[in-house]
Amino acid sequence: MKAIQVIGYHEKLQLTEVAEPQPTGPHDVIVRIGGAGVCRTDLHILEGQWAGKSGVTLPYTIGHENAGWVHAVGSAVTNVAEGDKVIVHPLITCGLCRACRSGDDVHCTQSQFPGIDTAGGYAEYLKTSARSVVKIDDSLEPADVAALADAGLTAYHAAAKASRRLRPGDRCVVIGAGGLGHIGIQVLKALTAAELVVIDRNPDAVDLAVTIGADHGILADGSQIEQVLDLTGGEGAETVIDFVGEGGATKDGLAMLRRAGDYHVVGYGENIDVPTIDVISTEINLIGNLVGSYTDLCELMVLAAQGRVKLHTARYPLEEFQTALDDLGAGHIRGRAILVP
Amino acid sequence: MKAIQVIGYHEKLQLTEVAEPQPTGPHDVIVRIGGAGVCRTDLHILEGQWAGKSGVTLPYTIGHENAGWVHAVGSAVTNVAEGDKVIVHPLITCGLCRACRSGDDVHCTQSQFPGIDTAGGYAEYLKTSARSVVKIDDSLEPADVAALADAGLTAYHAAAKASRRLRPGDRCVVIGAGGLGHIGIQVLKALTAAELVVIDRNPDAVDLAVTIGADHGILADGSQIEQVLDLTGGEGAETVIDFVGEGGATKDGLAMLRRAGDYHVVGYGENIDVPTIDVISTEINLIGNLVGSYTDLCELMVLAAQGRVKLHTARYPLEEFQTALDDLGAGHIRGRAILVP
Amino acid sequence: MKAIQVIGYHEKLQLTEVAEPQPTGPHDVIVRIGGAGVCRTDLHILEGQWAGKSGVTLPYTIGHENAGWVHAVGSAVTNVAEGDKVIVHPLITCGLCRACRSGDDVHCTQSQFPGIDTAGGYAEYLKTSARSVVKIDDSLEPADVAALADAGLTAYHAAAKASRRLRPGDRCVVIGAGGLGHIGIQVLKALTAAELVVIDRNPDAVDLAVTIGADHGILADGSQIEQVLDLTGGEGAETVIDFVGEGGATKDGLAMLRRAGDYHVVGYGENIDVPTIDVISTEINLIGNLVGSYTDLCELMVLAAQGRVKLHTARYPLEEFQTALDDLGAGHIRGRAILVP
Amino acid sequence: MKAIQVIGYHEKLQLTEVAEPQPTGPHDVIVRIGGAGVCRTDLHILEGQWAGKSGVTLPYTIGHENAGWVHAVGSAVTNVAEGDKVIVHPLITCGLCRACRSGDDVHCTQSQFPGIDTAGGYAEYLKTSARSVVKIDDSLEPADVAALADAGLTAYHAAAKASRRLRPGDRCVVIGAGGLGHIGIQVLKALTAAELVVIDRNPDAVDLAVTIGADHGILADGSQIEQVLDLTGGEGAETVIDFVGEGGATKDGLAMLRRAGDYHVVGYGENIDVPTIDVISTEINLIGNLVGSYTDLCELMVLAAQGRVKLHTARYPLEEFQTALDDLGAGHIRGRAILVP
Repeated sequence: MKAIQVIGYHEKLQLTEVAEPQPTGPHDVIVRIGGAGVCRTDLHILEGQWAGKSGVTLPYTIGHENAGWVHAVGSAVTNVAEGDKVIVHPLITCGLCRACRSGDDVHCTQSQFPGIDTAGGYAEYLKTSARSVVKIDDSLEPADVAALADAGLTAYHAAAKASRRLRPGDRCVVIGAGGLGHIGIQVLKALTAAELVVIDRNPDAVDLAVTIGADHGILADGSQIEQVLDLTGGEGAETVIDFVGEGGATKDGLAMLRRAGDYHVVGYGENIDVPTIDVISTEINLIGNLVGSYTDLCELMVLAAQGRVKLHTARYPLEEFQTALDDLGAGHIRGRAILVP
Repeated sequence: MKAIQVIGYHEKLQLTEVAEPQPTGPHDVIVRIGGAGVCRTDLHILEGQWAGKSGVTLPYTIGHENAGWVHAVGSAVTNVAEGDKVIVHPLITCGLCRACRSGDDVHCTQSQFPGIDTAGGYAEYLKTSARSVVKIDDSLEPADVAALADAGLTAYHAAAKASRRLRPGDRCVVIGAGGLGHIGIQVLKALTAAELVVIDRNPDAVDLAVTIGADHGILADGSQIEQVLDLTGGEGAETVIDFVGEGGATKDGLAMLRRAGDYHVVGYGENIDVPTIDVISTEINLIGNLVGSYTDLCELMVLAAQGRVKLHTARYPLEEFQTALDDLGAGHIRGRAILVP
Repeated sequence: MKAIQVIGYHEKLQLTEVAEPQPTGPHDVIVRIGGAGVCRTDLHILEGQWAGKSGVTLPYTIGHENAGWVHAVGSAVTNVAEGDKVIVHPLITCGLCRACRSGDDVHCTQSQFPGIDTAGGYAEYLKTSARSVVKIDDSLEPADVAALADAGLTAYHAAAKASRRLRPGDRCVVIGAGGLGHIGIQVLKALTAAELVVIDRNPDAVDLAVTIGADHGILADGSQIEQVLDLTGGEGAETVIDFVGEGGATKDGLAMLRRAGDYHVVGYGENIDVPTIDVISTEINLIGNLVGSYTDLCELMVLAAQGRVKLHTARYPLEEFQTALDDLGAGHIRGRAILVP
Repeated sequence: MKAIQVIGYHEKLQLTEVAEPQPTGPHDVIVRIGGAGVCRTDLHILEGQWAGKSGVTLPYTIGHENAGWVHAVGSAVTNVAEGDKVIVHPLITCGLCRACRSGDDVHCTQSQFPGIDTAGGYAEYLKTSARSVVKIDDSLEPADVAALADAGLTAYHAAAKASRRLRPGDRCVVIGAGGLGHIGIQVLKALTAAELVVIDRNPDAVDLAVTIGADHGILADGSQIEQVLDLTGGEGAETVIDFVGEGGATKDGLAMLRRAGDYHVVGYGENIDVPTIDVISTEINLIGNLVGSYTDLCELMVLAAQGRVKLHTARYPLEEFQTALDDLGAGHIRGRAILVP
């Protein structure tokens, strides 16, 4: 089959012919790819940023945001059958460790990450596990939802976790209305009645945020802290979700937070540098957020089927992967680029 | 009546005669002091560290860890009566703001703090509020529990909050087995079956920790991170409660924490400086802890009455306040110095 | 001032002239009534059903769903001032007992209930407490929201409590789309993405439910259990909220419930009669719901100000109380009858 | 191998020779039995009470409380290896359904129950699943802990769930200090500082309860409700855990419950028959409890290894199964009878 592989860092990806994956283990599931999201992480992989962490052996097939149709299953697979339309959770988890047994499979001590440390979905077929496939509604198309498998799932996880503490009358600040923030806003709108205040450096992103449900849009022009304090009677917001995590966003986010508030870290890049006296005297919480669990992905697919979460996508034939990556690198993609075999 | 007052920063406290407080507001409660804890914060006040924050006008009476007997009550007080033995919550709260109405009175937007920003308990009588007094068990003496009003309450609050997530098999690291840590260990022992690992720089404190219930005592000699990782199969502890917050404790604490773990900040001094990528890739929580609420103090008094939480105290007559402060400053107090009028 | 009083059971209410209430206690608040909801409980009071429970001395003024403007305040009132537009929480609570201190003021051990056991709001003025008044948004009128003070607050409380466990993909059955159910559906719609299945005996109520957000409307014609099972793949719903509680509703509700599901009791009348083996083998929860707390009422007023919760009302001048009660008794009221002084 | 089988209802069990089970599926685990608990349910099975529910085909091997050593494993088993000492969770669960994926495997929609609907552990070997085996501490012996696999696990589950809401100063009533109650008391003692009030009809059981940690023991002689109300200032207990569920226990339990309290149903037999008005006016919760999850069993094994939960056992050679059942039926067993092959 065709697969797009990393053959060297700081080199271009290469289209090549590899053997089609087969179900060898009892829980293996082979998915015929319907769409594979092109993610900024893919650019970072080519720059070698993940080489040390993943320890992957080159060449290998990248692509970690995948959806398609079940093509073949291992002997012990009971939850899906050939032909089922599925989205693929980015991790393959063991199902036996303590984290997996408590429903917190993201912290599985034995997980694999196709597209990062083993063969991914820029290809015609992908090998994953019965524990990683979620059947999607008839009304959804794999190529339309593929990008929800990782970026969308991370945004869902943070927004859903934050929602559990939000009550009517609370204010939730969202820093960053890009790919993740865009999904996060839609999820918050579906799960909470809290007032949403969205901040971005890009005026178009601010406008879009208001269109999809933000109660207030704020341009990050240097006055953003002051504007949030004005909107909250000088006390700050009960919750801040920071989808940026660099360029000063963490200092901003903490300055916008109310006493006893929750600051959710999602985006990353810079350090959080905060005096312990500030943490205890205001009794705030700083909460990390990784990608969502399998049940998070099931819930996100419900919101997608209900039309509550939508993502703009631009499709490219699999062979035109280079154009897709170039467009992404040049900032020409609105929403998400999707490779379609 | 006699009162010990701050008459100037960088000056000694002074014993003086002031008017006995009277109940003027409907919720006022006058407490005849049975014991007032001498706290390191009192030394900091004299050094002027709190001058800006509190905005208190000199001279004023210090002392924020108080217990005694109800002496007089305002017209609307129904929960205590003259003669009741009580401990005094350190804050006077409004009872009407959103925080107070949700049971989270520590975040009252109108609170006063006797001993810090208004007259405190180094005196024969203290004016507080019906919302601040907790009746204590017949078996307890005011002078024995006074120091639980603030230092003990803070330790209780953090330990009880941490306990809600701890399950049998989890490990809880306590950094610092001094005044607060000492109470924290006893509280954790009462509320959870988690394994307790206590770390201190002082070998005597480590020994004492093991005596009162720590499952493992570790001397902070530079090998503490490694020792915790060894005890936890290399994965770190589910919970770390940091009663120190300076001298490198925060870096240590985060290095000892397991994926998805909770790091509780209680002690303060240094900055937390942590890469956002570390926060999100391990999905940890950094949780601030301030003093406990009124209901926390009620619960702590239950543990004290059950004999589950004990504090060593050294009593001084009120007039010998200078000796007590000198002994504290010189590190000669084991447990807590208490002024008894 | 004018007041409508109960002068005897099984007798008609009587308009009479009584002294205007004055603030005598420090926390007293006098509210000039803008609207007083006419509730089925008022009919039950006249039938003597509450005589034993309330122990009230006749004559007294009824009316427990009140809103209006602050007219005068006691010496210690700081949260409202003369002229403020307010809705009145149905209970006067002490603020000092354990329940009040934990934010669970509905279980105050010292509460009073104006309109039930002391003078209520079918009058020009009502005496209540600083702890019972919630300022409402400028956009809301007292006569429009008065009925949210008790019936609406009960529905909010149950729906908000249920929402905390509901996730996307869960199904929530609402039994009864009358006064409370009507509010409950709007609250669920605002707070959760769960699928709402609404059941009523009245086809008009079913239609209305669908109009305001129910995903499925089911006529209770004997096939309702089967229909719910069909909608839920034979497994039942994760949550059932029973606003009826009589005429077989509890048996229906339990039969529609999924394993590990929550059955919320709100309406009352019949007994729940369920084998313990059924409770344990399916591990279900039966959850009582009383009126909401003060913070619940604050949250409901936020939803009302956002236009997310609306109630149809029919206004009557205070003097025409008899017509209002007659119309209610005859089933001629759509929404809620409101007396306006 | 030797196995004890049900050959007909109302007939005696029969020792027979059957084929040793082999790992055929990838997740199969064969356990060499070290101890199999003899449970009252086994007597009920012989009386035919489970015939309809289980649908099991006779003859089959009974025994659902098992522990031993791993003898052989299927191809995909990674969590245990030959020779490991294990306790066996009573259910074989699928790991793929929604319940399993949220850590709530007890509600697995595909579960099997060895000893009830498939071959159990009154035998030399048992076939179970990788998802059902928990490694136990070196200090524990299979025959000593086997009975914790089902009866003990149910008690742990209820007591641990109840503990999450209990705070110091709360009172927890335990109805029934027999097999389950005995474990429940030890678990509550380990997990909470709440005051424990234990009620039983048997004076010896009451005495034993006090020995293992009950703060108050009450003989159920007709005055038990009054005694609990006396101990709780007339208000009732915050939590009641009913391990009996018949003979009037549910009426007793509800009468002892405080407003907003939790009534945990564990034992079963009679119906709960309660007016809805009582449920809503006191806002109580009735909470079902089934056997614990896999993670519950892991936690219980930690408490057992710590010596916090102990069970008295009487061992019988496997061949003397009839004596064990006779002794159980005659009420001659203190603690639990264990068959040892």
